[in-house]
Amino acid sequence: MEHSGDRVTLGLEEVFALARSVLAAAGLPERQAVPVARVITEGQRDECHSHGLFRLPGCVQTINHPRFNRAAIPVVEDTTAAVTKVDAQFGYSLPALEAAMPLFVEKARAVGISVLAINNCFHFSALWPEIEMLTAKGLSAIAMTPSHSWVAPAGGKRGALGTNPIAFGWPRRNADGSPRDPYVFDFATSAIARGDMSLHKMAGKPLQEGWAIDAGGNPTTDAAAGLEGAMLTFGGHKGSALSTMVELLAGPLIADMTSLESMEFDDGVKAAPAHGEILIAFDPAVLGGGTRDNQASSERLFAEIAGQGARLPSSRRYEARARSLVHGVSIPRHLYDQIQALPRA
Amino acid sequence: MEHSGDRVTLGLEEVFALARSVLAAAGLPERQAVPVARVITEGQRDECHSHGLFRLPGCVQTINHPRFNRAAIPVVEDTTAAVTKVDAQFGYSLPALEAAMPLFVEKARAVGISVLAINNCFHFSALWPEIEMLTAKGLSAIAMTPSHSWVAPAGGKRGALGTNPIAFGWPRRNADGSPRDPYVFDFATSAIARGDMSLHKMAGKPLQEGWAIDAGGNPTTDAAAGLEGAMLTFGGHKGSALSTMVELLAGPLIADMTSLESMEFDDGVKAAPAHGEILIAFDPAVLGGGTRDNQASSERLFAEIAGQGARLPSSRRYEARARSLVHGVSIPRHLYDQIQALPRA
Repeated sequence: MEHSGDRVTLGLEEVFALARSVLAAAGLPERQAVPVARVITEGQRDECHSHGLFRLPGCVQTINHPRFNRAAIPVVEDTTAAVTKVDAQFGYSLPALEAAMPLFVEKARAVGISVLAINNCFHFSALWPEIEMLTAKGLSAIAMTPSHSWVAPAGGKRGALGTNPIAFGWPRRNADGSPRDPYVFDFATSAIARGDMSLHKMAGKPLQEGWAIDAGGNPTTDAAAGLEGAMLTFGGHKGSALSTMVELLAGPLIADMTSLESMEFDDGVKAAPAHGEILIAFDPAVLGGGTRDNQASSERLFAEIAGQGARLPSSRRYEARARSLVHGVSIPRHLYDQIQALPRA
Repeated sequence: MEHSGDRVTLGLEEVFALARSVLAAAGLPERQAVPVARVITEGQRDECHSHGLFRLPGCVQTINHPRFNRAAIPVVEDTTAAVTKVDAQFGYSLPALEAAMPLFVEKARAVGISVLAINNCFHFSALWPEIEMLTAKGLSAIAMTPSHSWVAPAGGKRGALGTNPIAFGWPRRNADGSPRDPYVFDFATSAIARGDMSLHKMAGKPLQEGWAIDAGGNPTTDAAAGLEGAMLTFGGHKGSALSTMVELLAGPLIADMTSLESMEFDDGVKAAPAHGEILIAFDPAVLGGGTRDNQASSERLFAEIAGQGARLPSSRRYEARARSLVHGVSIPRHLYDQIQALPRA
């Protein structure tokens, strides 16, 4: 640990130990605390601050939710040759994901496509670490989850949809067959993250047009009015349609809550949303059938995108990761002090 | 058939017979002409003009492409318990889809999720008629296909992506269990359709900002300059990422061409693109496992969206369909005359 002015530098092991210790002190058993601390460490490592140490106080609040189950032990169901379900029993999603992952991967490889439905979970995780678990196995994957109904549909006046992230990954190899950073994107279908709107309010900065409506359903650039009203989706009616797809596939399809239902379930606590998550894995080796070199084809596409000056999604994350693995991570002193003030085990 | 000023009204049977006859005269055998004529009729019926009679001359051009196979007989492969592949043998995609549909649906019902990969097809169809074939069976579904590389990635300077449509459907039932119009969207991931840009050029209308760049990679609102340059995706870097996902899943994943490769394959003919298509079907009865009423949950979401004045996607199409089933369809006289001038069988 190094202190320098208003920043504090931590090694990745320190980040993990700190997160794990705070979660343990909040009453989270090891089997839930370890995967959550791992994702917080990965978030901090990749400078994806919304899922880094910044979120620890929120995790403590979630653990204290009256409906959160600290004793949850995920129950994996081997549903069909292509479907695995796991009941998180209202603990965190991550232990459920880890419990079901081997079966989920095995089925994708056996039959070419496989679904994992995580039910009854409090959801804390960016989706990209989950996608990267699958690309590391040579699989392409999609992950989707609802949230709370803060987002108005295109043409609407109030929240009905969640921020509804969708993430996708495609495995990549170098010419010598060794694995390289996968193609991964992970974005909210809302125009901005809800946390960003709060940051604009605190900084007194106006929102961009198209980000939010006020409580009367009228367009606003005032962050406080937007927080009282609703966010909008990215991309107008297309983004709104896509967000609705996320609701349906990660909610009713797998018999779990929509963002509307999850917000009611939260009962005003404002903890991490409880709901489901759907992951879909594709095995290019099965679906491609070896008739064509699918890596050559995708690498040519990536080269064409990057070669004209466009960035591939996640490239900033991979650059941050490379830095963090060498130099550790740097966080603002006020965040460090805030975390130091939390009880630790 | 009724002529009234500058419009001509046709019954749906007349639309179908006209399309079938023109396709037959162009040398397309019955097994390919019938499904193509059916989609043209459905497009015209739903006032989805881009896939209505307007496209018949383009279909004739595609049939005359030196690489189009009029004698194609689709070859269905029963790949795994969850995967069906069909080789369209460089005929149209639709006969291949129809040949593989029973196996594709059977697998979705048996194991909860199923993929259909259509390979080596010339693609003519909106995706929503295909999605509606699946929602009619009680399945939720996604369909994706690349096109030609007319679309620049976010931050890029030239075409690398196709217009890359993505379509989704969710089956709906009335309270008495009878089927009702499904939730369906079908949109291009480009900011506008390529045909719309041509229409702007012909009408001398400027493009909206964010639709296109010129050949130098600079933003333009000039339609002619945009046609020389590249279109942009909807929704900035998120739309661009989504478009790349369509390329990868409907291209390399299933060992078929990307939009870049398809444009080269076309060899300057400017026919309908040849490439693959991926469809994914989900059975809510299997994935939901009957533990929760997934129709009640999704209907509540739709009611919340429609109840605040937002339109569900496809609602205009369903209204047009209801009108067309009673009154037939109305097309501009110049289009009618153009089609009358084509050879008919």
